[in-house]
Amino acid sequence: MLHIEAIMFDVFGTLVDWRTGVADASGPTLAAKGIDMDPLAFADAWRDEYQPSMERIRAGSRQYVPLDKLHLENLETILKKFGLENIFDPDEKMELNRGWEKLPPWPDTVQCLQRLKQRCIIAPCSNGSIALMTRLARHGGLQWDAIVGADIAQDYKPAHQAYLKSAAALGCKPETTLMVAAHNSDLEAAAGCGLMTAFFPRPTEHGANQTIDLQASGIWDFNEESLTKLTDRILASG
Amino acid sequence: MLHIEAIMFDVFGTLVDWRTGVADASGPTLAAKGIDMDPLAFADAWRDEYQPSMERIRAGSRQYVPLDKLHLENLETILKKFGLENIFDPDEKMELNRGWEKLPPWPDTVQCLQRLKQRCIIAPCSNGSIALMTRLARHGGLQWDAIVGADIAQDYKPAHQAYLKSAAALGCKPETTLMVAAHNSDLEAAAGCGLMTAFFPRPTEHGANQTIDLQASGIWDFNEESLTKLTDRILASG
Repeated sequence: MLHIEAIMFDVFGTLVDWRTGVADASGPTLAAKGIDMDPLAFADAWRDEYQPSMERIRAGSRQYVPLDKLHLENLETILKKFGLENIFDPDEKMELNRGWEKLPPWPDTVQCLQRLKQRCIIAPCSNGSIALMTRLARHGGLQWDAIVGADIAQDYKPAHQAYLKSAAALGCKPETTLMVAAHNSDLEAAAGCGLMTAFFPRPTEHGANQTIDLQASGIWDFNEESLTKLTDRILASG
Repeated sequence: MLHIEAIMFDVFGTLVDWRTGVADASGPTLAAKGIDMDPLAFADAWRDEYQPSMERIRAGSRQYVPLDKLHLENLETILKKFGLENIFDPDEKMELNRGWEKLPPWPDTVQCLQRLKQRCIIAPCSNGSIALMTRLARHGGLQWDAIVGADIAQDYKPAHQAYLKSAAALGCKPETTLMVAAHNSDLEAAAGCGLMTAFFPRPTEHGANQTIDLQASGIWDFNEESLTKLTDRILASG
């Protein structure tokens, strides 16, 4: 029987639909400027800059800055790429950036978190900042016990410190902390730190033609077909 | 009109009754060991070590450690003072220390936090660790948006960084952040950092004969007779 004292969750993709959310938040702004571009393609392009922008910090060639700042820099990058660098003033760019604070939870997220919170500590362990996670939680109704993740570690997942310092901040040992993600790479890193791991797929995170993370690629402690099934299993596990 | 984006709260004394809580948690253990001692006096003695233990860290002569560790060290100190150092084994001391995770909220706390949460971000800015604040919140039903405070700053109030880094972690400027405390010294420091300030008294925090913090000693942005009145005033202020 597993002793679970805290559950830490990946957020972007696992609990909220960043692609639809960013597209919905950006679409009207793009249209108002007369930009003929699929908002989902805009969201995908923005997200494509996500890993490279964190990698410099993980590699130690740049000091930690919160994801809000990376998102804004990445917006500049893609606007330049699309030849749109002179279309938006700084306030408009800030407003576009706040789209990341208004991402919709997947339909099962809020209820599953409520059920799990009855059982143990629940907290996001995301690459989003405390500021971003706070606003996202208020927007979507995610009732966290605490917010840990990148800001606590001053480094980005999958750096091991992001998991270890987050669990420590919650007052938990790695072996009593469960990491939940719809991304195998996140769980590989968490398992490497001695955390318990739980996978379920979000098969449309990247759209209808998604090819990655459709199933577990490792031996995780839990491997379920949905967050609801995972919640059932965790609540039945002790 | 004040623009309040986030409200940060002192916790020990302001939102929870640490004195009764520690006494109630310690009393049965003291009695079971045949120790004839008023549990409230035990709680007072333990709390008397609080400021001195943090002062070494604020002064820079010791690296930051979370309050849970200081509480445990302070327990050793008072047990020695009372000639009780060989009465409790390490597990029993840890269990006594966890009394700080089970402090009762004052009767108006939970409802006022719920009301204020409808309006803006609410978070503790306490000298308690994220781990301690998390367990205290789950015990008492305090529904925070995020937990900031000493762990975020790696320093203890009234060090200015404890307020400034906490507000920054919430994504807020000092001038849009309101610090709420039943302690004037806490508000003096917060005001010194440019935060808004709100006072109300907890006249029995230290027992029936309390002489300090019965009224505001400075010009705070809000000065009300109770948390409920303060909540009314904040909700009416914009």
